[in-house]
Amino acid sequence: MKRAVVLLSGGLDSVTALAIAKEQGFECYTLSFDYGQRHDAEINAAKKLSVQLGALDHKIINIDLRTIGGSALTDNTIDVPEDHPDGIPVTYVPARNTVFLSIALAWAEVLAAEAIFVGVNAVDYSGYPDCRPEFIAAFEQLANLATKAGVEGQKLTVHAPLMTLSKADIIQRGIELGIDYSQTVSCYQADDDGYACGRCDSCHFRRQGFEMAGIVDPTLYQSN
Amino acid sequence: MKRAVVLLSGGLDSVTALAIAKEQGFECYTLSFDYGQRHDAEINAAKKLSVQLGALDHKIINIDLRTIGGSALTDNTIDVPEDHPDGIPVTYVPARNTVFLSIALAWAEVLAAEAIFVGVNAVDYSGYPDCRPEFIAAFEQLANLATKAGVEGQKLTVHAPLMTLSKADIIQRGIELGIDYSQTVSCYQADDDGYACGRCDSCHFRRQGFEMAGIVDPTLYQSN
Repeated sequence: MKRAVVLLSGGLDSVTALAIAKEQGFECYTLSFDYGQRHDAEINAAKKLSVQLGALDHKIINIDLRTIGGSALTDNTIDVPEDHPDGIPVTYVPARNTVFLSIALAWAEVLAAEAIFVGVNAVDYSGYPDCRPEFIAAFEQLANLATKAGVEGQKLTVHAPLMTLSKADIIQRGIELGIDYSQTVSCYQADDDGYACGRCDSCHFRRQGFEMAGIVDPTLYQSN
Repeated sequence: MKRAVVLLSGGLDSVTALAIAKEQGFECYTLSFDYGQRHDAEINAAKKLSVQLGALDHKIINIDLRTIGGSALTDNTIDVPEDHPDGIPVTYVPARNTVFLSIALAWAEVLAAEAIFVGVNAVDYSGYPDCRPEFIAAFEQLANLATKAGVEGQKLTVHAPLMTLSKADIIQRGIELGIDYSQTVSCYQADDDGYACGRCDSCHFRRQGFEMAGIVDPTLYQSN
């Protein structure tokens, strides 16, 4: 059976990517990162969702990107913004998707997996450069040069099935696939129980997505 | 002054790459990884060499690649071979250079560095796919699509100054630059004091390099 490594943050997008990989007939191996982000709620969500969606294994890699810093998500001296200015916001984590995909590539090689799935999206995103189709294409090209498997002719494909979907489209697709989005955590500053702030960029796009999809937003918001 | 992030394992090649970066006028920031390799001796060497060669900062990133496994260097159930068969050996660590370069890219962005130096070498190497010029070229292309700095027009160059040199050439270049190679650790299974086994692939190529260069091998070998 064909295998895929699926990057799973525990947020709305990545769980939808996982459900799509499963629908496409892949045996799924989920990969999450404890990289020093502001809360553990999303990792806890990733653990639960991996089991619910039948992943064969779930690994959590510790890599403390606070050593590098440079983002509101990995440097506590930089506040998470609650407005939505133009340009790439301070929640951008330098080279994060490159780092995560590289480690997914390592695991894919060990598993002899033929695919990596990642829930990046170029439509209702925050302007992150590593969420664009040209980035994914360049990573796929690199991946096939980087490994022993690649040299030996085993082709790896990087799937970004949400790339051209709006947040509303993603939600509609996930509902069709039976996802319970109340279990996902998208907020940049969720509390330990996974309750969302309702104010950061990520909450903003998520809430708007449910509105546009005409679906009741199941997100658990903090009461303050 | 122009800045470079230099990947520094503590081995012969990477310290030579550091000396070359310095000679080219870069302010150097060295980056090492504690990834679950078999010994700490090379990280200790990297610490000392960073100071000796005047690096402005040295970061050590913990990322346990034993979680992924798939190599004699990250899985203690796989022995380091002491012969030199054809093909890619079991000391190959899946996607290691991709992972290391990705994290170097993250730090380069935070530092606004314009270069990454890496001591990979396609001549006297062990057949590792991620030591080839086409891999480095693909990573540079990815790097310039992956980051906010790249999107904003700051070009990053990945330098692999040892790529086409033989081990003997590397050693001669390093001696000209004043490197004390007795301080470097290349062995895959060095002891805690940095004494080399003298039998693994890495020892084999290093010893041969000194012979070919006509330079007395200053490596500290285990007596057994």
